[in-house]
Amino acid sequence: MEQKKGYFITFEGIDGCGKTTQIELLDNWLKSLGKKTLLTLEPGGSDLGKNLRQILLHYDKPVAKNAEMFLYLADRAQHVNNVISPALNQGEIVLCDRYTDSTLAYQGYAREGDVNELNMLNEIATNNLKSDLTIVFDIDVQTAQMRLGKTKDRLEKEGVDFHTKVKNGYLELEKLYPERIKTVNANRSIEEIFSDVKKIVGELLNI
Amino acid sequence: MEQKKGYFITFEGIDGCGKTTQIELLDNWLKSLGKKTLLTLEPGGSDLGKNLRQILLHYDKPVAKNAEMFLYLADRAQHVNNVISPALNQGEIVLCDRYTDSTLAYQGYAREGDVNELNMLNEIATNNLKSDLTIVFDIDVQTAQMRLGKTKDRLEKEGVDFHTKVKNGYLELEKLYPERIKTVNANRSIEEIFSDVKKIVGELLNI
Repeated sequence: MEQKKGYFITFEGIDGCGKTTQIELLDNWLKSLGKKTLLTLEPGGSDLGKNLRQILLHYDKPVAKNAEMFLYLADRAQHVNNVISPALNQGEIVLCDRYTDSTLAYQGYAREGDVNELNMLNEIATNNLKSDLTIVFDIDVQTAQMRLGKTKDRLEKEGVDFHTKVKNGYLELEKLYPERIKTVNANRSIEEIFSDVKKIVGELLNI
Repeated sequence: MEQKKGYFITFEGIDGCGKTTQIELLDNWLKSLGKKTLLTLEPGGSDLGKNLRQILLHYDKPVAKNAEMFLYLADRAQHVNNVISPALNQGEIVLCDRYTDSTLAYQGYAREGDVNELNMLNEIATNNLKSDLTIVFDIDVQTAQMRLGKTKDRLEKEGVDFHTKVKNGYLELEKLYPERIKTVNANRSIEEIFSDVKKIVGELLNI
């Protein structure tokens, strides 16, 4: 049986950067061009992952740093195995809201985990499946915090210092993996940002 | 502040080997001697872990091999950090039903995972906390299966071949770590087995 190969595009940024809006616009655009897409997210992109997402974002007692990390990895392993890889093998374009770079930015750079170790753990969780393209939405932390408003989950409640570390982590990652990671200035209007997104994705897909 | 140091004793074996009964007998014996003990288990020894245990033992859809492994590691990381280490620092004797050797026997030897990689993951999850003593209850697979009866959880439902691999995995581990792992013949009466357990634990604790 011939193995088809789709495209795997991931989206990253601090909470409130506007990526969910952009992913939906992109999904609609690609569908309007007749492309088959799968819109998914981490944590919570699989049935099992929905249970884990609930724990990761809403558990109200202290979670050990390593425990949190392994929960994200469990979510990712199930997601890759049961959702992402099957879609890619069907030739679909998979649009994933957060992936391995979130672990590096949040658990690595912001919580000061060992980035090399996290890279190795990501490889185990994903069977070394890397994105073809990762778009980072870079935004001022204060602007992002204002957008989030008052109903925040466990991670969104972290302070400005924490989110600044995450933001800077993404900028480090862009330097390390420039062939895969493209950063978009997300301090602009939805239309201006989406114009950049279309250009970057269009280049990857030759459309 | 002086840091007290307790003893960390773990118990291993295939399901139906009788370890739960033996741990309870041991706990009662140690308490009767005035010892402070903590009786705990994996998965599910922490509040977070109770949620994860529910998923690990009763989730009825396919769980990716890596996802299962990371869930056990998340459970262990939380357990060590929030339950086991605090008790050891208080000088308690921690009696734990399953620990790192279960991961090696089940995910490693029985499911044919990479044992070196699992060792490394166990070290990350536990901050390299090893047991002072591990008692493996070695029993014929058929005898253990009969003891379990008909109400089995997800892992207990695995067949004789699987549990034979787990049993043999424990025997391999005893060869690798003879200073820490002691194997007891569990094909005997509760009293005979407990006599061995008391002797082994008595030597560790000098009682």
